[in-house]
Amino acid sequence: MDYYSEYINKLIEQLSRLPGIGTKSAQRLAFHIIHMPKDQVRQLTDSVLEARENVQYCKECCTLTDREICPICANEKRDHGQIMVVENTRDLAAYEKTGKFEGVYHVLHGAISPMLGIGPDDIKLKELMKRLQKDVHEVIIATNSSLEGETTAMYISKLIKPTQIKVTRIASGVPVGGDLEYIDEVTLLRALEGRVEL
Amino acid sequence: MDYYSEYINKLIEQLSRLPGIGTKSAQRLAFHIIHMPKDQVRQLTDSVLEARENVQYCKECCTLTDREICPICANEKRDHGQIMVVENTRDLAAYEKTGKFEGVYHVLHGAISPMLGIGPDDIKLKELMKRLQKDVHEVIIATNSSLEGETTAMYISKLIKPTQIKVTRIASGVPVGGDLEYIDEVTLLRALEGRVEL
Repeated sequence: MDYYSEYINKLIEQLSRLPGIGTKSAQRLAFHIIHMPKDQVRQLTDSVLEARENVQYCKECCTLTDREICPICANEKRDHGQIMVVENTRDLAAYEKTGKFEGVYHVLHGAISPMLGIGPDDIKLKELMKRLQKDVHEVIIATNSSLEGETTAMYISKLIKPTQIKVTRIASGVPVGGDLEYIDEVTLLRALEGRVEL
Repeated sequence: MDYYSEYINKLIEQLSRLPGIGTKSAQRLAFHIIHMPKDQVRQLTDSVLEARENVQYCKECCTLTDREICPICANEKRDHGQIMVVENTRDLAAYEKTGKFEGVYHVLHGAISPMLGIGPDDIKLKELMKRLQKDVHEVIIATNSSLEGETTAMYISKLIKPTQIKVTRIASGVPVGGDLEYIDEVTLLRALEGRVEL
């Protein structure tokens, strides 16, 4: 490809390694970047480097934060005895946006997946178990309702059972506003099983 | 959004400014970058900065290159009297991949678009006209067959006409392998108008 500069080829190659970016998108991004003002390009690379440099795991809940202890764990008004276990920081953010959860979180950074070779030791499970030695009254498992999420939920609940701490799982069912016609059978069955009296 | 670090928010904001990257993709990219090994992050930012720093317009054809004169313009075996005018470097690459064009290119870096306020002075047209003072026997206009591409083609052909240099336009018609049923009317009419005797 001597019709592109080697710098462009290298940039396209680097960009296409990112998730969800194919060769065509990488090309478009590369040419966009080359036409961007230099100070904007520098802002972009600085924000990449600064984020990579400063963001770390919260010593308490393992979420991504730029402090030792994240603002949620540092907040004394929250119920530190109620821990919601999520797969990643984006899931934490999704629940946090509802503004209704008063407890704290634990971020696993993944889910158990024998297919992908991800075992219990590859996610932040030891860190969760250590937290349970303090005064915890409920662990809410809010992993995804995928195969991996369900496997992880089962695994964690078995692990916690002996401690006598209450373990709950968020409800699966028909999403609010969802049209039954378009919802898969497994979800429909879950919604039936989980029916509540009115 | 105090549930994300300000560094993550800033990175998401920067990434979502790129074309084709929405907020959700920017979030996914940001978290991916934070989990990447530091040396890989550095490789990514270096390739961005190096490309922006070293890539410039070819002094001859205006394509993006890291040299004064791009490899195609520097190649004495090519026919420098036959210039194919394209909208951008990706279009040049598309023709170059065919391996059948022996002439040289001229890259406009855009097309005339009164809607977007892009006039003849906003694309590399002056640079093209200057090249025609040398010994040129044909200008092939290969702008896109969009409204902007056609407008640009008409504009350039009118500009060149007085110089007596032969001006041609790449054929429009049914793409090879295209199923007539799925091709729009304008293309079908163009294909009919441009029919050739067998």
